[in-house]
Amino acid sequence: MAERFDRIWHNARLATMRADRPDLGEIERGVIATRGGHIVHAGAKADFPADADAIERIDCEGRWITPGLVDCHTHLVYGGNRAHEFELRLKGASYEEIARAGGGIVSTVAATRKASEAELVAGALPRLDALIGEGATTVEVKSGYGLDAGTEMRQLAAARSLGRQRPVAIRTSFLGAHALPVEAEGDKDRYIDLVCNEMLPAVAKAGLADAVDAFMEGIAFSGEQTARVFETARGLGLPVKLHADQLSNLGGAALAAKFSALSADHLEHTDEAGVAAMAKAGTVAVLLPGAFYFIRETQKPPIEAFRKHGVPMALATDCNPGSSPMTSLLLGMNMGATLFRMTVAECLAGVTREGARALGVLQETGTLEASKWCDLAIWDIERPAELVYRIGFNPLHRRVWRGQ
Amino acid sequence: MAERFDRIWHNARLATMRADRPDLGEIERGVIATRGGHIVHAGAKADFPADADAIERIDCEGRWITPGLVDCHTHLVYGGNRAHEFELRLKGASYEEIARAGGGIVSTVAATRKASEAELVAGALPRLDALIGEGATTVEVKSGYGLDAGTEMRQLAAARSLGRQRPVAIRTSFLGAHALPVEAEGDKDRYIDLVCNEMLPAVAKAGLADAVDAFMEGIAFSGEQTARVFETARGLGLPVKLHADQLSNLGGAALAAKFSALSADHLEHTDEAGVAAMAKAGTVAVLLPGAFYFIRETQKPPIEAFRKHGVPMALATDCNPGSSPMTSLLLGMNMGATLFRMTVAECLAGVTREGARALGVLQETGTLEASKWCDLAIWDIERPAELVYRIGFNPLHRRVWRGQ
Repeated sequence: MAERFDRIWHNARLATMRADRPDLGEIERGVIATRGGHIVHAGAKADFPADADAIERIDCEGRWITPGLVDCHTHLVYGGNRAHEFELRLKGASYEEIARAGGGIVSTVAATRKASEAELVAGALPRLDALIGEGATTVEVKSGYGLDAGTEMRQLAAARSLGRQRPVAIRTSFLGAHALPVEAEGDKDRYIDLVCNEMLPAVAKAGLADAVDAFMEGIAFSGEQTARVFETARGLGLPVKLHADQLSNLGGAALAAKFSALSADHLEHTDEAGVAAMAKAGTVAVLLPGAFYFIRETQKPPIEAFRKHGVPMALATDCNPGSSPMTSLLLGMNMGATLFRMTVAECLAGVTREGARALGVLQETGTLEASKWCDLAIWDIERPAELVYRIGFNPLHRRVWRGQ
Repeated sequence: MAERFDRIWHNARLATMRADRPDLGEIERGVIATRGGHIVHAGAKADFPADADAIERIDCEGRWITPGLVDCHTHLVYGGNRAHEFELRLKGASYEEIARAGGGIVSTVAATRKASEAELVAGALPRLDALIGEGATTVEVKSGYGLDAGTEMRQLAAARSLGRQRPVAIRTSFLGAHALPVEAEGDKDRYIDLVCNEMLPAVAKAGLADAVDAFMEGIAFSGEQTARVFETARGLGLPVKLHADQLSNLGGAALAAKFSALSADHLEHTDEAGVAAMAKAGTVAVLLPGAFYFIRETQKPPIEAFRKHGVPMALATDCNPGSSPMTSLLLGMNMGATLFRMTVAECLAGVTREGARALGVLQETGTLEASKWCDLAIWDIERPAELVYRIGFNPLHRRVWRGQ
């Protein structure tokens, strides 16, 4: 008797994004079959039994299927709205005037602290829905606007809740070491004590974080302070990642590599030694062209060095109210190509396979391969390059999450 | 007896964009009433009869209403697809290699010539729908990929057809002087003869063009050739507009002003004399940050000079396959702010009032004022600045075209 599947998508063109295939791992006459939410077959029609039976058979009419998209770096959950600050800045307001008008990260922290978990969820849902509407099936969400144990945990709980309210996989990162709260009165070391001794153990105990992140920068935390956070995370069995070398080269990439970080993110100022260390550690470079664009940065991340050393490159939205109010991975790809000169294949891998690798979930999603979750994006396009080339156009036909 | 309206939108906040009001002409507690497709009242609730009767009353629940958006510069109708050329360029292909692979404007002209009117319409509809989906109610469409009388007229007919197939006002511009066709064998003057003596009269006679456009640039046509096109247009009673000073300063802005052009577009290299001439002539500056972004231009249009001389600034997508494959006016506004440092009020005026002015239809649309068409965009936002600030997020709640 023939095998029975839950669902078969046929008459499709596949960009499998498999790492063991060249380019996009394209299959011109492809079939995907799912059972129990997983991919059982993703390959050529010729390799698939013609008499295969399924509860539902879907004719894709030649459309392209890619893996469901992965946004591996977002600050999706926050309180407040910084559009007014943006408006003031364009009118020429100074940093001080904006601070007096209640702007800056301080305003987001204040609004986030005031918000209930339900309010945080309600605020984040339209942003999440925008990502889902473009085919995202896995989204990372960071804390980092609470900067006290209660609010950080509420942010992470809100992120977990998003994953129950929408058909999408949410991965959470604890980012207590994002900025110094006002009440710390400039004492970064004492705040890092709080992060390591109280916040992180509480977050870990509650199972609220899948990873631990930090912001290493002159305006944030030093390498030594970051290392303390990472050591604590290691002690608790949590993988780490880092906002590294965004505004200056403090050796963030190398530090991330030293702790076998899943990813180092931003990386505009990373030097070749940092790139080499990342390559050795298998740390993914998460590139965030939305922030580069929004803050009008001119120093580009070292794309050529990543290629030369074989560092995998992911792309993400960095969705956040201060420096990247972006909720489009399609646009993230276009910016990766236009601003960073990444190729079409690199951009597509960046929001699928390498995004999944940056979250430590490449065994589960990010490519079209048997045994992974059946996370698909089905597109009304003639060729995958259109997903990168077009600006402000969404050709998503259907999204499938875990086979549905 | 109380006045009877077709429809009343109440409990709304209005950004009227009226030129006689400061900033956005905001009204916090606003009402709009329509009859026969036109606005009868757009103002404060306090100034509106409480007992007004209507076939339908719509509670906007505090949402913001702006004028329907105007995209005053697009090349929406064309054949073919240049995503592959984009892909090749990112892989490092040279201009020659791309030309050999069938790229460049030549490929779009060839594909457009091959396409039937129905095929051109079918290709353009998804792009038009993307604009409409963000609240556009008036869209300009140029020819310029035919470069022979039959194809230029077919492009314009396809554009007119778009306006019958969707609830949107289409304004057409004849752009025969866009590029030199291959068969002209380098003889620009002889091709301009053809434009002036055959193409333009035929287009005018068929009523296919609302305006005449040209591309004045080293790689396109000279000032003298452009002037000949404009003189012919004037003789036929058609207003003119110009692709001016995009890649170099050839005095395009001044020439456009000399012919009282509706608009001069691009303008990255315009000098202050050109700006002053535009101010005197009432010529609108149409700024196209999508093209600036896509071709990685670094020379910005002279925004300060436009402000100083009081030249109205519009913003448009420049949607075209070669240098701005963009179908989002929201993103156009964000780029106007981020890349050109235009204020929120300038960006919003740029896609409403000034866009309408650039098309010569400001008497009909572009602001919320009695007697104009009732073209509205209703937004799920807290403040209008969000429309400019966010990247890749569409908060459109409802769009209304001519009262419906």
